[in-house]
Amino acid sequence: MEKISRTKIVDLMKREDFGAMVNVKGWVRTRRGSKQVNFIALNDGSTINNVQVVVDLANFDEEMLKQITTGACLSVNGVLTESVGAGQKAEVQAREIEVLGTCDNTYPLQKKGHSMEFLREIAHLRPRTNTFGAVFRIRHNMAIAIHKFFHEKGFFYFHTPIITASDCEGAGQMFQVTTMNLYDLKKDENGSIVYDDDFFGKQASLTVSGQLEGELAATALGAIYTFGPTFRAENSNTPRHLAEFWMIEPEVAFNEIQENMDLAEEFIKYCVRWALDNCADDVKFLNDMFDKGLIERLEGVLKEDFVRLPYTEGIKILEEAVAKGHKFEFPVYWGVDLASEHERYLVEDHFKRPVILTDYPKEIKAFYMKQNEDGKTVRAMDVLFPKIGEIIGGSERESDYNKLMMRIEEMHIPMKDMWWYLDTRKFGTCPHSGFGLGFERLLLFVTGMSNIRDVIPFPRTPRNADF
Amino acid sequence: MEKISRTKIVDLMKREDFGAMVNVKGWVRTRRGSKQVNFIALNDGSTINNVQVVVDLANFDEEMLKQITTGACLSVNGVLTESVGAGQKAEVQAREIEVLGTCDNTYPLQKKGHSMEFLREIAHLRPRTNTFGAVFRIRHNMAIAIHKFFHEKGFFYFHTPIITASDCEGAGQMFQVTTMNLYDLKKDENGSIVYDDDFFGKQASLTVSGQLEGELAATALGAIYTFGPTFRAENSNTPRHLAEFWMIEPEVAFNEIQENMDLAEEFIKYCVRWALDNCADDVKFLNDMFDKGLIERLEGVLKEDFVRLPYTEGIKILEEAVAKGHKFEFPVYWGVDLASEHERYLVEDHFKRPVILTDYPKEIKAFYMKQNEDGKTVRAMDVLFPKIGEIIGGSERESDYNKLMMRIEEMHIPMKDMWWYLDTRKFGTCPHSGFGLGFERLLLFVTGMSNIRDVIPFPRTPRNADF
Repeated sequence: MEKISRTKIVDLMKREDFGAMVNVKGWVRTRRGSKQVNFIALNDGSTINNVQVVVDLANFDEEMLKQITTGACLSVNGVLTESVGAGQKAEVQAREIEVLGTCDNTYPLQKKGHSMEFLREIAHLRPRTNTFGAVFRIRHNMAIAIHKFFHEKGFFYFHTPIITASDCEGAGQMFQVTTMNLYDLKKDENGSIVYDDDFFGKQASLTVSGQLEGELAATALGAIYTFGPTFRAENSNTPRHLAEFWMIEPEVAFNEIQENMDLAEEFIKYCVRWALDNCADDVKFLNDMFDKGLIERLEGVLKEDFVRLPYTEGIKILEEAVAKGHKFEFPVYWGVDLASEHERYLVEDHFKRPVILTDYPKEIKAFYMKQNEDGKTVRAMDVLFPKIGEIIGGSERESDYNKLMMRIEEMHIPMKDMWWYLDTRKFGTCPHSGFGLGFERLLLFVTGMSNIRDVIPFPRTPRNADF
Repeated sequence: MEKISRTKIVDLMKREDFGAMVNVKGWVRTRRGSKQVNFIALNDGSTINNVQVVVDLANFDEEMLKQITTGACLSVNGVLTESVGAGQKAEVQAREIEVLGTCDNTYPLQKKGHSMEFLREIAHLRPRTNTFGAVFRIRHNMAIAIHKFFHEKGFFYFHTPIITASDCEGAGQMFQVTTMNLYDLKKDENGSIVYDDDFFGKQASLTVSGQLEGELAATALGAIYTFGPTFRAENSNTPRHLAEFWMIEPEVAFNEIQENMDLAEEFIKYCVRWALDNCADDVKFLNDMFDKGLIERLEGVLKEDFVRLPYTEGIKILEEAVAKGHKFEFPVYWGVDLASEHERYLVEDHFKRPVILTDYPKEIKAFYMKQNEDGKTVRAMDVLFPKIGEIIGGSERESDYNKLMMRIEEMHIPMKDMWWYLDTRKFGTCPHSGFGLGFERLLLFVTGMSNIRDVIPFPRTPRNADF
């Protein structure tokens, strides 16, 4: 076969030098046609669009033609031709075909219309489908948008540790990491396990958040962000929970709560706009196939300023709704940790645009948040989105050493784990703020998928660590 | 204090509107001067350069002035003024100063010239030093360069799992991940631990490589790369080993070994050029303070094409060197896994430029590498660099199902872990290639640092998981 340099399908679709000899490589999605002419839809993953390869059967070996089945991998030399039909403007009139890899009828993706549950069981093959190709190209693009946004703003990408010996938020539910021989655990005279021989010489776990280390970096480099895996050993089998997920956590020295809100709003709008501008084909596919309101919802969050509202005001609105007869599953009262239904009522029913809720009761928020002068609330901020509810959670941090210490004592957080964190408040403390965005939450919003297991390549959930 | 919007020092250095009122915020590096005038070197992490704040002492409160000590955090309003001295072209004549955070004399970074060992013990504060500020800004920039390079080439960033139930290369030395109560392990009648109650219902570990999952993605999306943490529970206390490190692994459908070499060379040159172009101040600082040959070495690898040489030829050169009297610590013979001294001899002494060594004996390489027709070698490729030795390792992958199966059986790799990987060879197999770059190896090269613990914020090594 003649050696012609390969053109990716995404690039081929932009070419207009009809008549040129081209080479395309990819996997057969469908094959149809008559006894004279066949049409092969070939996909190489570079785009959701297939290129149509037109095969004049008389010109090709019969045995080779038999191997062109769904899933087979081909290399095709042919003439770039203007399409006459609808859809793509370019197709390839095949001159030479090489079957790089055959695919027999045990291939699980032969027929269309598999359930999402079935596709999760073959997560090693599902990126070959239109749906997951689209989702994972969007996932890539959202990661790129995030790095680009922060880099252009002068933030530094900072790698906080994955394995940690301290439990950031006292969250519990951590995965233990060990190299000990579980058949021969050393114990002391009280029966306590001795971690001397474990790899790190002490008990170690997988991180639940990089924030505390991020604060160390922000008070040195000024503005940083993390983007890495985080872990929760929560036994929750829901469409919204993963044991392993990716999180983005910017942290900025000298930012107060207002600037933190500005940053969060600008940031998430940047990501959504990026998806609309750079993933148009994939977003349109998901809109048409899964979620007819997707594009409208994405454009919706870009249109207006987010509402900014104290928690106390939000509770009033919800209480008024209840008074007027709106039924919530969970009760509404000052002090309650809002449920998704409450958040969505504010966003979807009351304001009809995203809401940043601030100044939450201190009892339902973490120890490190800046305490307001009312003695009751802290400078937390949650960004609430349509369909998703909370998509970002953040706060201005308590920068006062004494106030922070009091809170740590009130909440019985073990001080021995905290000395290095407290040093930031001891040595040249400064106002600073940050927030966390669950990457898969963003992806649920941008792709319109309804199960979080379908926006990460290989989901880790209770009783599932396959592939 | 008057509210003036803050200018980052990196941006202030570019301003030429002398006479303007500006606000700068940052941490005091040094303070010196006379009884009339003081000069404060202020740094905010945005650049290695400090801004000089000129303080006419008569205009300020004495008690406030006492708080301006090394490490204190200040907000300064003042007039942007052209510098008369050498160094920076702009300085700030202070009009108002607010001490945001004091810093007493227990601050460990007060005096200069701390050892690297000491700074590792205060890894939570070391990003505030010139050296680590430079290293971590370069680390950020290398991550950005990597994403930019692959994105512009149409690769998709793909998140392979961190927690895995299969051991990729049979490497052993993995960290176990568990939620079992170690005080109450369930065992079966043979005394074997029962993993039914563990989070994933089976034994799970931290990944040592995302390559196998990366191959799944490449044979669907065409060209992908990973960039995430990987783990080795190796009990190696050396300046070159970390238990937790970040790895970049591109994988490309339809690329054969030549294209894989082209990609690796273009990629690493892009990163090195990025450092020279975008981190000039930081690289120059490290060059001047730690490694006088750094810039020359960086420019050196950009100048010429890398040598491409089969392993067998490499061995001949080394054997000739031995014959001529060159002494190596480890023996040289066909079949040996080259030591760093051998790699560096080829690069630094013989060719005086980077070398890509190919076609290694199959016995010293992984099962998935494409077997050559000689029956003895595989299409591996290692990129060897001055000072570092191997910086990239990769190969064309075996795409033939039967050949791959034979190798898996020869090497006694448990088949039950491999079914999903083998499916890529069963269903539409294709030639494909990829490689791995240890991010910290790249950083050692680009920063000139000599200990790998000094190019990652919080190193994890045997008996160390602090912060």
